Parts: sequence; structure tokens; C-alpha cells
Amino acid sequence: MGSELLSGRVDTHTSFLARRLAEASVTLARSTSVPDELPAVREAVAAAAARADLVLVCGGLGPTFDDITRDATASAFGRSLTFQPALYARIVRRYRRYRMRVPSNNRRQAFLIGGARALDNPNGSAPGQRLEAPGGRPVYLLPGPPSELKPMFEACVLPELMRRFGGGATAARRVFRFYGVAEAACDQRLAPVLKAFPDVEFTILADLGLVELHAAARAPRASSAQARLKKVEARVARAMGSAYYSREGDSLPGAVLNLLARRGWTLATAESCTGGLIAAQLTEVPGSSAAFRGGAVAYSNALKESLLGVPAGVLARSGAVSEETARAMAAGARQRLGADAALAVTGIAGPSGGTKAKPVGLVYIAASVPGRTEVVRRVFPGDRGQVRRRTATHALGLLRRLLTV
Amino acid sequence: MGSELLSGRVDTHTSFLARRLAEASVTLARSTSVPDELPAVREAVAAAAARADLVLVCGGLGPTFDDITRDATASAFGRSLTFQPALYARIVRRYRRYRMRVPSNNRRQAFLIGGARALDNPNGSAPGQRLEAPGGRPVYLLPGPPSELKPMFEACVLPELMRRFGGGATAARRVFRFYGVAEAACDQRLAPVLKAFPDVEFTILADLGLVELHAAARAPRASSAQARLKKVEARVARAMGSAYYSREGDSLPGAVLNLLARRGWTLATAESCTGGLIAAQLTEVPGSSAAFRGGAVAYSNALKESLLGVPAGVLARSGAVSEETARAMAAGARQRLGADAALAVTGIAGPSGGTKAKPVGLVYIAASVPGRTEVVRRVFPGDRGQVRRRTATHALGLLRRLLTV
Repeated sequence: MGSELLSGRVDTHTSFLARRLAEASVTLARSTSVPDELPAVREAVAAAAARADLVLVCGGLGPTFDDITRDATASAFGRSLTFQPALYARIVRRYRRYRMRVPSNNRRQAFLIGGARALDNPNGSAPGQRLEAPGGRPVYLLPGPPSELKPMFEACVLPELMRRFGGGATAARRVFRFYGVAEAACDQRLAPVLKAFPDVEFTILADLGLVELHAAARAPRASSAQARLKKVEARVARAMGSAYYSREGDSLPGAVLNLLARRGWTLATAESCTGGLIAAQLTEVPGSSAAFRGGAVAYSNALKESLLGVPAGVLARSGAVSEETARAMAAGARQRLGADAALAVTGIAGPSGGTKAKPVGLVYIAASVPGRTEVVRRVFPGDRGQVRRRTATHALGLLRRLLTV
Repeated sequence: MGSELLSGRVDTHTSFLARRLAEASVTLARSTSVPDELPAVREAVAAAAARADLVLVCGGLGPTFDDITRDATASAFGRSLTFQPALYARIVRRYRRYRMRVPSNNRRQAFLIGGARALDNPNGSAPGQRLEAPGGRPVYLLPGPPSELKPMFEACVLPELMRRFGGGATAARRVFRFYGVAEAACDQRLAPVLKAFPDVEFTILADLGLVELHAAARAPRASSAQARLKKVEARVARAMGSAYYSREGDSLPGAVLNLLARRGWTLATAESCTGGLIAAQLTEVPGSSAAFRGGAVAYSNALKESLLGVPAGVLARSGAVSEETARAMAAGARQRLGADAALAVTGIAGPSGGTKAKPVGLVYIAASVPGRTEVVRRVFPGDRGQVRRRTATHALGLLRRLLTV
């Protein structure tokens, strides 16, 4: 909550909660962020409780001076705050388990709002709280760190949500993902599909070359909502053709790994400007070790030669950022890392290192499978991070194409 | 805006805007997210314009059916929407430049709200808009994709903000980052520092082992705000000692790279369970090639032997996830990749692969510099992604310690 938004890390609450609430058939009527100041939090909590059937207050339960959610919420409903020795004992036990000294300010976390019930936090020291606003509307106080918030939401909040609001209709959700087609073109190809399902809720999202279609179907029974989405999928697949990759896996790396596994092929990576990003995306997928052998991050020319066997003559003649080097890196990755397929990238991610002939954003991507190697040249817009992410996405998209034709 | 929050990707607006607004001395009074439905957006825009001195409406300017921000904002202020041939020509030119067919629904993006001025979007097809609500309060419509929103904010919104609100006092901001100390202990050690600067605004944040202290000082002149933060820094450095790493670089990888460069040392990585994540974090830092030579992602035992020279006997005797293997991987990385220092990790990120003796979350991390190698064993909580990120953070923290003692 509040000033914590300044960090650029905490602000994933809303998207997580919106998604999980939608899956539980609950509409997120409004999400409000306010600074970590007592009057602002108090006013926001009171206003939310007056408007909504259930309120989630996220963050501000820590031990530090700016953690004022307990005080602000107690004040919003005219309740007391009392120290709970049993709660404090649990916090102290947690510290002892990790052999840490208990800081004295952790006492603040053992204060409970009058009428509230404490919620166990197995992943951190801040207990959550559940109280009822006037009229019996539940108000939940949840810890801010995503690694604590998410499990507590699943364990403590979701069951009550399902019980209270999930009775009428259940919702099923699916995300269809596309690569290699612009958002507007996607929208046009999907328009007749969306029109055919007026009862299903759709949202289209796009960024950095990927497009997503979110679909939510509601029905009295979960099985009929699922059946409806199966029909949506058939139409989506027909309309989007090979651009629709998420039938093969939840993510683009997941789709590539599944296509490889289907053929019994292994994969190796050889990365220069992406510096391990492609390998990291592939290995984020559980079970990736079935197809992914490993990779080389060859930033320097010397490592391109020694790790990947790129001939010194190629580097001297064409330069490190060239079609010939990308091709040699892919061949080297297959041979040296003992894999059937390879992805290799070399480029200039910036901000420095660009020239007129080889500008920042220039990348060569080589994808290689048995009997076929393809190299593409691209100049990607954006800063260093964007060029790297676009390159990784494009590389995986290229390999997927070689695996589906 | 709105339903786009469901994606889990778009929700970085608020944190970005809150930070940039704070730097411009502007308080983000409230941030509201509503579903992509016309009445909800209309009501939220009208309420914001009645309350705030300046309103930013983010997202919903795309070409697709659910992009309703233009319509909702026009409706909120009782304005018309008219097609602008000149705007449309600019959109068409953009498509032609990238040799793409212009989808007919892109016409929607060429509609301007009555009295509004179009804002150029060099990074996408959706132009922004600037209009004035009753009373002359500026309302900005900005595109949703971060790669389009951020540059447009900097180019079009920030200058007006500075002109309108930046006159009285300017703010300076600093983020101090800590590693190796729990949030509550951090708070205790910082408490006297914060008390000594009642005029400075502080926020503490923590997740996955890292703690941040954000400080904002306001003063009539930028130089005096900066001077105030210099004094804060001196006290923070004294209170936190070696836990304070951001004096050495903006991020933990940045700090490590700077410490290496100061000694003229190079670095190589050898990763198993993190699968390239450490190399990717290091190479995200501009100029990392000065110290980072490259890395090996050795998922399989065969690659641990062939790429890193881990003796087959070590793998057979101690197993791939062991102190001995981590140590051999680090030695191999230094030797085979020709680097002065090395980081090596091997572990079980899960969700499968764990045993009673070697559970999911078990990792061995080896950091090696000339004359010294240290190996630590940790069992990290959390899911696959959390274990991998904690391991990467811990590995960089371990190497930093070897470089600062």
C-alpha cells in the first residue's frame, strides 16, 4: 500500500488479486493506492468498506515506522489495538527458528485490531488480520511482500470469497497467447470470434511483441464454463493459425520446450547480447531439464572461440555482430553442448557500442534444428532492457516456427 | 487501465509514475484502477478531475474493442470525438515504415476529444491526448504499454508538471539498498538516522532478502536538497556498515561489477539451478562487458564435465548438488572461461527433484576470487521462481562480501 508503490516492486498486488478474484467470479470494483500516511489510509479504508462487499488492504503490516495499516484501519472503524502475547510468541519463535535476534520493534506486529482474528503467515513475521466492518462486511489486512501476500490470500481469503460469492456462477478463465502478429491485426482476426461469444468476457493485451487474449466464461457449473472456453479455443485457433502458440505451452519458452520434447530433441543456447536471458527464461519452466541441455554466455570474442568454436577468421572478417558469427555460434552450441537444436544471438543492446553501420538494437538471431538453420537480422527499438527482451522473445519465436513447419 | 491489470504485466504504471512525480515534488494523491467498462472509466475520470490538480489516464488508447478511454473521457466532460485525417495519416505512415498493412480498426486511434491536443507517440501507433477539465485542470491520456507510456510521460507531461508545480520547492530522491540484514533489524539500526532528519521523507521496503530505504528531501533549490541527502547518506553508511551496498552501484549486480572493475578483475559464472539468471542480471547492467567475461549454464552432468571440467569422480561421489561440485564448478569457470573471479551455483529449484536428504530449495553457492573460495549451503523457501531469485541474490551478495573484506 501507499508509498511502497514508489519501489517499482510491490505494485504487482493489483494484477495478482484481480486475476484470482476474476477466477472466483468476483469483480474487483476498484483498486486504490494511497501514500503511507494515516489520514489517507484511514479515509481509503473507510470509503472502500462503505462501497464494497469485501475489502482487501495490502501492505503496511511490517515492523517499521511507516507500517501504519493496523493503526489506520483501527481508527477507520473506531476500534482499539491491543497487544497479543500469543501472537508475539509466534513471531519470536519464527525468528529463533532462523537463528536471528528478535528486533524489539517487531512487537508492533503483535497488535490486533479490536474484534479481529489473526491470520497465520508461514512466510514472514507479519500476521494478517480479518475483521468485520459495520454491516458484517469482511475486511482483510494482508502483508505487502508478494511472497507473503499470495499464499495468505490463497489460504485465508479465497475460501471465504468462494463461500460468499462463488455460489451463483463459477468462472473459467483462459489466456490465449500470440506471437508474430501486431495487436491491431490480431484484433481484426479475432473480431468475428468475439462476436460469436457475447456471453464471454474478453480483454486484449500487447507489449514487446507478444499479444494476449484473456477470456472469462461464467456458467452455473464449472464444467459448462470450461466447455464454453473449449469452443472459444477452437475458433481462436482457426482464426489465428500459427500465431497462436499457447496451445503448446503456457509461455513461449514453455511452448518451445514442449515442441522439442515431442520430437525427442534437446536444445542448447549461445548468447552474447542477451547474456543468459534466453537460458533463464527457458529454465524458469518446471521440467525444462528434459529438453534443455545448457548454454554458453559468450560475451567476449575469446569465449566465442573457446566455448563455441567460432572460427577466429569469421570474427575477424565479419565481426562479432554478424550473420556469419550467429550461424557459427549456433553450430558450435549444437556440437560443443551436444544438443539437437540451438539458439544463438549476437547484437548490440546499448546504450553504447553502436556505430552507423551497426547501430544499437541490431541483432542477429540464429535458430538451428537438424537439417535446417535460419538466421534473421533485426534492429529493435527501445533501451538496453527492451532490446534484450525483444531479442529473447524473437529468438524463441523463430525456433518455434522451425519446430512447427 | 482497468481490465488490463489482469495481465500481471501492465501494472507497473503506478510505481513508475509515483516515483517520477515524487521526483518532481508532486504528490500522487490517489491512483485508481477500474475495469475496462465505459461507466466505470467515465466515473473514475470525472471524480479524479474534481479532486486533483492534474489527472493522468493510462491505457485504453489502443485500436481494439476494449480500448474505451477516449470515449469514456469525452463522455465524462461532455465533449465530442472527431476523426482527425492528419493524425490518421501519421498512424498510416508508421505502419508503412515497418512495412505492415494498416488494420482498418486503427482509425479509432485517430479520434480526438473536443478541445484536446494530440501527443506524439514515437514508440507506438496510439497518440496521447491532452485536454483541460472545467477549471483548466490538465487531463492527460497516455498509452498503456510501458515502452510507450514512459517516454511520452517524460516528453509531454513532465515539462508541464515542472512548470506548474515545481516552482516552489524541488525534491531530491535517493534509494539506499541493503543486503544481508532483516527488515526489522534494518529499521532498528536506521531509527536514529531517520529521527535526525525530520524534514526528509523515508520509506522502507523489503522482499526476497533485499531491503531498500527511499529518502526524499525537499528544499527551495535542488543543490540544497542534494546536500541534505549527502548528509543522510553519511549517517546511513555509518549505521548500516557493510550491509549498505548501493554506494557501490545501483543494484547488487552493479555493485559487484564496480568492485571487480576497481580491482581490474574479470568474472565468469557457472550456473545449474539458476539457469542463466545470474548472468542475465549481471549483463542487464550497461557496460558489464568490462568485467563480465561470460558464463556456462550447465544443467546436465555431462555439461558440468565438458564445459566446466568438473571431475566425473566428484559428481559420482558427492552428486551434482553438493559443496564439492559447486567448488569444482567455480574453479572450472575461472580456468575454462579465463576469469579472475567466479560464481557457481548448483541446487534443486523444484517443484520436483527433491529428496529427504536433498530437499527442494537446497542450493550450494561458491564464490571464488584470487586466493580465496567460499562455499555456502542454503535451503531457500518458496516456489521455483523464488528459489532461483533468492539464489541469484545470495550468490551476488556472497561475492560482494569477498570483494569488500
